[in-house]
Amino acid sequence: MLELQTQTSTPRRIPVLEIFGPTVQGEGMVIGRKTMFVRTAGCDYSCAWCDSAFTWDGTGKKDIRMLTPEEICAELYSIGGDAFAHVTLSGGNPALLPQLGSLIELLHRDGLQVALETQGSRWQDWFLQIDDLTLSPKPPSSGMLTDWLVLDGIVSQLTEPGRSFSLKVVVFDEADLEFAAQVHERYPLVPFYAQAGNDRLHETEPARLLPYLLERYQWLIDRVMTHRGLRQVHVLPQLHTWVWGNKKGV
Amino acid sequence: MLELQTQTSTPRRIPVLEIFGPTVQGEGMVIGRKTMFVRTAGCDYSCAWCDSAFTWDGTGKKDIRMLTPEEICAELYSIGGDAFAHVTLSGGNPALLPQLGSLIELLHRDGLQVALETQGSRWQDWFLQIDDLTLSPKPPSSGMLTDWLVLDGIVSQLTEPGRSFSLKVVVFDEADLEFAAQVHERYPLVPFYAQAGNDRLHETEPARLLPYLLERYQWLIDRVMTHRGLRQVHVLPQLHTWVWGNKKGV
Repeated sequence: MLELQTQTSTPRRIPVLEIFGPTVQGEGMVIGRKTMFVRTAGCDYSCAWCDSAFTWDGTGKKDIRMLTPEEICAELYSIGGDAFAHVTLSGGNPALLPQLGSLIELLHRDGLQVALETQGSRWQDWFLQIDDLTLSPKPPSSGMLTDWLVLDGIVSQLTEPGRSFSLKVVVFDEADLEFAAQVHERYPLVPFYAQAGNDRLHETEPARLLPYLLERYQWLIDRVMTHRGLRQVHVLPQLHTWVWGNKKGV
Repeated sequence: MLELQTQTSTPRRIPVLEIFGPTVQGEGMVIGRKTMFVRTAGCDYSCAWCDSAFTWDGTGKKDIRMLTPEEICAELYSIGGDAFAHVTLSGGNPALLPQLGSLIELLHRDGLQVALETQGSRWQDWFLQIDDLTLSPKPPSSGMLTDWLVLDGIVSQLTEPGRSFSLKVVVFDEADLEFAAQVHERYPLVPFYAQAGNDRLHETEPARLLPYLLERYQWLIDRVMTHRGLRQVHVLPQLHTWVWGNKKGV
């Protein structure tokens, strides 16, 4: 009975908003990687500049499909054929979903690698199965507050030789930059990525967006290059917005 | 006497053309990394589209300085202060210089990490000391021929658990793309990067160069995404040319 109850308490179906690819990963430690995307619905945050607000603000609610891991795999193969070897789980915050574990298992069984990005507000045991895990605590401009004790716990559970995980902070302004330095100082041994933020989410013309994003990236480079608290770091743009602007599903 | 002869046969001074930074690394496995650059003179290749031809075509000859490892370190600190933790050795082909070993040792003693890129035409024992090593065999458009047996030997000596090295191929056209697939197929377990080439080396205006580079990157993405022989790969631009165009020393 207990076993049955436990099984019932973890739902099997996964709330999915988008499945697309293959395309290139645009951010962080896996930048440039040829990958498929699975975007889940739901988030415990509501960042001021979220570029996927439809995953949590109600506007995408009608597009949510409750899919089994097998159905998700079938759709990945139907869209991507056999031309891919990597799948990115994105959100929303996929870390809200304990049932993702069985999807990850299925992908691994097929020899695929799996990446995931989350803000680091919740732990899931399946974090330990992720091949490329990015923790992305949110800076002051987001309006969100980081629970440092939760993040400490997650970082500490992930810290072991050979595990590939990284920290990433999106930076819009000086206060965000200091937050980035604070995160890097707190976890100095974890590979660290600073990413230039995009606050022009309503610009529909990629050619108009690009010069602005370039300028923001140059600003971030200039600030990080002279920053003594940010020594062992990467500075990256959101590469996909340079190529496709704010277009969804690419 | 033998020992003296051996010492004499390995010169101590290093032919240096540029020392600059900190800046962001624009390519491959270390893309975005905050780093200092040391560019050495001399190359055994003469690629048709080389973006650093001054290192081997005679035009930079008057700018070569013969520096000791200590002098190079002093200059790195004089320019970069204490705001960096990573140094990239670039060329030319730095793998022509056995004496780089003592520079790498000195940098490591200071807690700095070291990256190196080479075409994979020569082995040096100090390859085993490099933190981020990129082997970049040259595609048909370069006019160069790869000695596969030499490359096989280098890849095999580098292949051991925990070693961070990668392969990178610059791609200008379809023949280059097939060469990239051939390299990836020959060494399927080595992380692989395809990089969009820049053949407009005389364009002085970054704003005019960017749309062209963007178009070339999009072309490469399109070709790789549907390519079944290029599954486990990264596709990247030369990020620094997007930001600074063909400008040297940034």
